[in-house]
Amino acid sequence: MLTPARRTFLEHLFPGEAASFDEAVRYVHGSDASRLHGMPMGVVRPERLEQVVELLAWAQAERVPLIPRGRATGAAGAVVPTAGGLVVSTAGLRRIVSIDADDFTATVEPGVVTGELQKACAAQRRFYPPDPGSVNISTIGGNIATCAGGMRAVKYGVTREWVLGLTAVLPGGEVVRTGGRCHKDVAGLDLTRLFVGSEGTLGFITEAILKLAPLPEASASLMAGFSDMEALMAAARAVFAAGLLPSAMEFFDAPTLRAVGLTAPSVPWPEGTAAALLFRLDGSRAAVSAELAALASHLQAATFIESAADATAEEALWELRRLVSPALHKLGPDKHRDDVAVPRGAIARAVAAFHAIGERRGVIVVCFGHLGDGNIHTDVMFDAADPRQKSAADLAKDDILRTVLELGGTLTGEHGVGLAKLPYLSLQIGEAERALMLRVKAAFDPHGIMNPQKAYA
Amino acid sequence: MLTPARRTFLEHLFPGEAASFDEAVRYVHGSDASRLHGMPMGVVRPERLEQVVELLAWAQAERVPLIPRGRATGAAGAVVPTAGGLVVSTAGLRRIVSIDADDFTATVEPGVVTGELQKACAAQRRFYPPDPGSVNISTIGGNIATCAGGMRAVKYGVTREWVLGLTAVLPGGEVVRTGGRCHKDVAGLDLTRLFVGSEGTLGFITEAILKLAPLPEASASLMAGFSDMEALMAAARAVFAAGLLPSAMEFFDAPTLRAVGLTAPSVPWPEGTAAALLFRLDGSRAAVSAELAALASHLQAATFIESAADATAEEALWELRRLVSPALHKLGPDKHRDDVAVPRGAIARAVAAFHAIGERRGVIVVCFGHLGDGNIHTDVMFDAADPRQKSAADLAKDDILRTVLELGGTLTGEHGVGLAKLPYLSLQIGEAERALMLRVKAAFDPHGIMNPQKAYA
Repeated sequence: MLTPARRTFLEHLFPGEAASFDEAVRYVHGSDASRLHGMPMGVVRPERLEQVVELLAWAQAERVPLIPRGRATGAAGAVVPTAGGLVVSTAGLRRIVSIDADDFTATVEPGVVTGELQKACAAQRRFYPPDPGSVNISTIGGNIATCAGGMRAVKYGVTREWVLGLTAVLPGGEVVRTGGRCHKDVAGLDLTRLFVGSEGTLGFITEAILKLAPLPEASASLMAGFSDMEALMAAARAVFAAGLLPSAMEFFDAPTLRAVGLTAPSVPWPEGTAAALLFRLDGSRAAVSAELAALASHLQAATFIESAADATAEEALWELRRLVSPALHKLGPDKHRDDVAVPRGAIARAVAAFHAIGERRGVIVVCFGHLGDGNIHTDVMFDAADPRQKSAADLAKDDILRTVLELGGTLTGEHGVGLAKLPYLSLQIGEAERALMLRVKAAFDPHGIMNPQKAYA
Repeated sequence: MLTPARRTFLEHLFPGEAASFDEAVRYVHGSDASRLHGMPMGVVRPERLEQVVELLAWAQAERVPLIPRGRATGAAGAVVPTAGGLVVSTAGLRRIVSIDADDFTATVEPGVVTGELQKACAAQRRFYPPDPGSVNISTIGGNIATCAGGMRAVKYGVTREWVLGLTAVLPGGEVVRTGGRCHKDVAGLDLTRLFVGSEGTLGFITEAILKLAPLPEASASLMAGFSDMEALMAAARAVFAAGLLPSAMEFFDAPTLRAVGLTAPSVPWPEGTAAALLFRLDGSRAAVSAELAALASHLQAATFIESAADATAEEALWELRRLVSPALHKLGPDKHRDDVAVPRGAIARAVAAFHAIGERRGVIVVCFGHLGDGNIHTDVMFDAADPRQKSAADLAKDDILRTVLELGGTLTGEHGVGLAKLPYLSLQIGEAERALMLRVKAAFDPHGIMNPQKAYA
């Protein structure tokens, strides 16, 4: 509850527009890309570590829930304030503190948009590889909170691999600094990676030290079509067997191709193409050119191959990938999106099973995404205005998640559990493991004020 | 204390040679490569999960310290039973349970020797990249416990990046299963990576699911000499600036070259070479050949370049690297070895400072190792029989560690804190962070029986 005393405290700590209790402002800070909603008591926007320290001391004493929030691009509802409390925006903490080209590190505040950091690094011929689909609208803080993955994970790994150190404030106001600027460091328990993927449940991150790589000299892309998923999987196996490690390896199933075909001005695939792969290679110029030829030689079953060795041509292929999400609305006004992952060898079985679920339930199930990691985005398309379709879609989503777990998969490859997946979590994570997670959380947040009712709560 | 009742329990749980209380056996299980020593009450060797469960239930009830032990190749004393207790060897848990070429995973018990796993993977054209110097004598369990790094970390990262899931038994006998076979998985807190690098302080790992990569089709190596460290660092910067990412990038300083020169039948470097770099490239055949040429073009200041594009020639260059440790004894019968790391941009300053410390203290300080990660192995060479040298070496070690921290470095890049670095840990890790680590440990091990007095205790 927002008592007058609490409001006075917060307005004093966050002067002017840095605190808001306006109903409209609270309302828009009550949701994210999941479209789930909860109403916070207020929204505050710290700009300095000292404010965060004072806020977390107060919030623990007052038992006020805090919900750290980046740009709210998450699809799992992790920033939805279901338990009320205060939304703590990172929008005022958006400085790139430093990019050190010799150390191959960047020090940033959590509100920095990932794509902006990538551009600033590229200007110094450095490379921050994590590349979620939301790269131009999501923040480093949000990426760390969810251990964001993305396109390039097949070669470069996920956000976890690129975080070297953190400054975080714990409930009560204690500041902890984990890791540092060294690329290798094994002193003490790995608190840094414990924060990565913790969905705001342990503390409030105020600064991150990120690892950078040399900027690859060149890249090239290639799209290839197949008559079915089996032919696609055989090609993918041949590529890996040849020792090639693309930086991205995305796939499109037949409904995805259909939707994109209805949206794009033109598409490169011929009739009879029921699945497609989109690769990116990067490295030195000579290596990329050699690997592009090697890659094509393993795709002899393709219905078409289009390769792109300059930026404009590459961009045209990747524009097709970015079109997927908006294009899917051609197949239905509403969707249930999941980002399940399965062991890499189970992808073909998983996609076949998801399609069969769609047929059985009478809804369209679309699969696309990060084939190289087994991370499949499944969209169940339906019209929520039709109660029969809505119910069929709900059942299909349920079937999909159960199938994933039967295949040894996970409910979430990169979006997080948040609020949306929490009801399913006990199907994947056992009681002993969940109890252990809660004991670990208590070591950081003994009174449970950090993003309660989320992730593993 | 080994009471008769305890001994009876253990002999019953570990029949025959799987338990030993013999003084000689206990003595040899009291030390590791650090040459520190403590005497355990006994040594047991479980072969099945059920034995581990029963052991950990008993040990917690009896408050008996347990010291998990692989092949004891660690240099930090992490397996030295300073608090007495029972050494729990992984030598009976050495099955490669499965290598799944389609999933790109291997499931292994902790006692598997890492090099043996690598060979088994290579037979299926799969690749387990972590590559500590001890690869042919150390185990996966030990590598996980220390988050082992090694030569290939500059391109492939460290052990942490290659562990997907774990089965571990907690004190009290509870079995927890973390992660799984998916390459991407963000469901719940990241308990998997919390175990990685925890030095046996959280629980006993009985099985690990590891991530594999496609086996690179080809590799090549190149050694280049320089007149001083500054010229070497300039070349290293030029390589990274060109967007090249070698899989290994090792350096040798002048004393290292001198020691190897006194040991090897022949060496490739000419007079006037005071520092050298050894690179390995891997990838597709065409890419490696192109990158080898590109690499050489950035090394024009070299006193010599020797490149090796076939396995025999590569082996000859890497044999020089492996000779370093044995060769150093030409410079003194005893050594203090550290595996410090500094931010990558501080390497030249660090090496110059370490050499200056050696001159000031009147001992030889040798630097070599993983330049690409800033992970420098420093050996202070001395004769322990000479009390003046011993004292000078102790002071030099101390100076080195303090210099590292002044440069923003870490006391340990890959060996761990163990026992040897524990007295220095408070120079690097603050009270708040250490207290947090202890609270996290208590979530796993409330009575402190797992490898007490180690790592961050």
